[in-house]
Amino acid sequence: MTTHITSESPLLTDLYEFTMMQAYFDAGMNDTASFEFFVRKLPAGRNFLIAAGLEQVLAYLETLRFSADDIGLLKQTGHFSTPFLRSLEGFRFSGDVQAMPEGMVFFPDEPILRVTAPIREAQLVESRVMNLLHYETIVASKAARVALMAQGRSLVDFGLRRAHGAEAGMLSARASYLAGFTGTATLLAGLRYGIPVYGTMAHSYVQAHLDEAQAFESFARSQPGNSTLLIDTYDTEAGAHKVAALAARLRESGIRVNAVRLDSGDLGEHARRVRAILDGAGFREIGIFASGNLDEYRVRDLVESGAPIDGFGVGTRMNTSADAPYLDCAYKLTEYAGLPRRKRSEGKATWPGRKQSYRRYGADGTMSGDTLTLEGDACDGVPLMQPCMTAGRRTAPPVPLGTSRALAMQQIAALPAALRSLEPASAYPVAVSAALIDLARAADALSGSAGAGSHTGLRG
Amino acid sequence: MTTHITSESPLLTDLYEFTMMQAYFDAGMNDTASFEFFVRKLPAGRNFLIAAGLEQVLAYLETLRFSADDIGLLKQTGHFSTPFLRSLEGFRFSGDVQAMPEGMVFFPDEPILRVTAPIREAQLVESRVMNLLHYETIVASKAARVALMAQGRSLVDFGLRRAHGAEAGMLSARASYLAGFTGTATLLAGLRYGIPVYGTMAHSYVQAHLDEAQAFESFARSQPGNSTLLIDTYDTEAGAHKVAALAARLRESGIRVNAVRLDSGDLGEHARRVRAILDGAGFREIGIFASGNLDEYRVRDLVESGAPIDGFGVGTRMNTSADAPYLDCAYKLTEYAGLPRRKRSEGKATWPGRKQSYRRYGADGTMSGDTLTLEGDACDGVPLMQPCMTAGRRTAPPVPLGTSRALAMQQIAALPAALRSLEPASAYPVAVSAALIDLARAADALSGSAGAGSHTGLRG
Repeated sequence: MTTHITSESPLLTDLYEFTMMQAYFDAGMNDTASFEFFVRKLPAGRNFLIAAGLEQVLAYLETLRFSADDIGLLKQTGHFSTPFLRSLEGFRFSGDVQAMPEGMVFFPDEPILRVTAPIREAQLVESRVMNLLHYETIVASKAARVALMAQGRSLVDFGLRRAHGAEAGMLSARASYLAGFTGTATLLAGLRYGIPVYGTMAHSYVQAHLDEAQAFESFARSQPGNSTLLIDTYDTEAGAHKVAALAARLRESGIRVNAVRLDSGDLGEHARRVRAILDGAGFREIGIFASGNLDEYRVRDLVESGAPIDGFGVGTRMNTSADAPYLDCAYKLTEYAGLPRRKRSEGKATWPGRKQSYRRYGADGTMSGDTLTLEGDACDGVPLMQPCMTAGRRTAPPVPLGTSRALAMQQIAALPAALRSLEPASAYPVAVSAALIDLARAADALSGSAGAGSHTGLRG
Repeated sequence: MTTHITSESPLLTDLYEFTMMQAYFDAGMNDTASFEFFVRKLPAGRNFLIAAGLEQVLAYLETLRFSADDIGLLKQTGHFSTPFLRSLEGFRFSGDVQAMPEGMVFFPDEPILRVTAPIREAQLVESRVMNLLHYETIVASKAARVALMAQGRSLVDFGLRRAHGAEAGMLSARASYLAGFTGTATLLAGLRYGIPVYGTMAHSYVQAHLDEAQAFESFARSQPGNSTLLIDTYDTEAGAHKVAALAARLRESGIRVNAVRLDSGDLGEHARRVRAILDGAGFREIGIFASGNLDEYRVRDLVESGAPIDGFGVGTRMNTSADAPYLDCAYKLTEYAGLPRRKRSEGKATWPGRKQSYRRYGADGTMSGDTLTLEGDACDGVPLMQPCMTAGRRTAPPVPLGTSRALAMQQIAALPAALRSLEPASAYPVAVSAALIDLARAADALSGSAGAGSHTGLRG
């Protein structure tokens, strides 16, 4: 494949990343900085988040380069000096990255990624690192809820058409599979990420034939091992009768109909009636697949009502994370030139220093609490951030998506039961260590304006 | 620029587009089909929509090709016959496109784009055509509301980092500019689409310096004509005093500070205090720029309260259209082989035939009502859809973005006043012609199952 879904352009960033680089260049500042990406708080109604997007971030960092064209375009803007532009010619990301592996459950204030690099490099990559981690994380976190509610029924990502652009279509297929979906309808995502690809048929296919039964037969004969027939174009139950009659006829030629799809009306009620029609005709093996504005709440209600639905196509509301289309997340400087840093802006204060989260599990394997502390501080539990890039090179080959998916499944299963439901639960306990609180005080003293709002910004 | 933001891969589509193509191929069906893209209903709280994304759709259709690699990947899936795959080798989109120009205001049920082509081509392009039109339209429609509330103050797109992927970052910069924003912070979008690019500074820049005043001075000297200083890292008013002192010193070297940025707390109250501090020091020309979780409601409240804010950075909530992250939109077959088609699925019935919208204006230029009818049906008013592609080729060169922006400004200004406010207004009148109602009845009779739910699905 020679096409590029993602921009690899180093200019896909906010202008200010470059003007700050220029100012650091002018001042000769390029000491080591640590930036951490974290989420400030959970969206309303959410009990946990799933880390995702790391693989795309590492690929971006590894390949970041400036072509002569890129430098020419920067020059055109008039904001940059020739010596600075020349310094970009041999640019390579030379920093270290520590991160939670994809699929890890995490909570507010816990960093899921830390970049430690000369400050110009660490600053430049901010916009794209956030863009990737934010989107995949919010989709994985939404998809995990749908998967919990589906209780093992198949789930197919249907959302390319209303995802926000091409890359959202691709990455939401990936992130939803990581979080427990069965596959995607997006062909290119299936091919690129190794995800199972599924397809049914559109209403237009039925409409293009003057006779609905003819449309079903033509499709079933064309895709003999792969036909899911859409039966709601005109009248769902009438469609089911046509499928039953067709399946009986096709059986003689050795062709089977795999499933029917319902896409409108009361899906649970239609599913019951269609099940009865198919069973009555002796086709218990024909599955029922449902779609149409589904999300975790509708899937839960359908499953709990006992609707005989074998799988769901979940699109728009998952791919756009419709109830929470963004996270309150940040990529913040926590250390520069060996000294801790933090901001104290009202309502947006952050924790300084290079941090690590430790997770404890009970005897039955259930998560019992995390501690947010400084790297190197002794702490009970399993450290969640791991080194994944040193001096600009990966410390290990890319993690297969299936491995990340298995971690997500294990992590979700280990959540306290209340956090796995759709009801808002008491917050999972994340303790802040004394060492970290002490460091925040020290950072405030260093920044020289401890009088105004210094400790009031502390949270935890 | 050699990088690709958007995928030009023909495989960026739903698998079912290809399995339907294969079924049409097997049946020898490839008559002319018309598909129309429209929105079923307005999101809650919205009074109008702005058409956007056409330019990207035309570029996609013009360049759609299958490489040998693409065909090899399709073959690997096992779903397709060799003769069908061979038919893709010389594939070109050969159809016609009629569409509303970008920037046009539109309402539910009015098609903004029609593809008329051999059905296999018209079907294949469904997923990506929807993906592009849906996203740019929802962003332009959201951004137009922000622009109305800003009442001429400058508005900069700040949202790359939380847009849903790279393409969303790029296209939201474009769509928001089209709908009235002043510019974007996303450098690559500015360069690619010819949009003004703006930048300020990040908290990390301030934090990296142990002394805030030193950070301000270093940045202002590095960007002497282009410095917007972020003053809320520790204490906003203390920051304003430092800027005033710095500006006085820099004036002697001929360097001016353009503006300060506020990003937290009560933005209106901080703006008043900061204005007083700067004015008191004789710096009326230093502007105040505000950002931080802004949307049309917050911008309205700040403007109405008289807060002395000269411009706003609006990001996440605009780029994700956070209150309405998706549209209930569709790309539906309306005619095949010369006969009208429609679906009657419960709650999702569609209008058949090739349609056109006509818009009437009052004596003062205000829109007074639209009529949805069939192409060729005589009707008062201005037709909104225009031919833009014939036999796979554009009928005219690409429309400059500035021209589309001017149309959007003119259209928004022509909206009835109630529709320009944030309060829900009575729906704009879109009449459905008798000719269209008659055609819907005829289509129902043709599809041969008029007994079940036939006319009940009609809306209008």
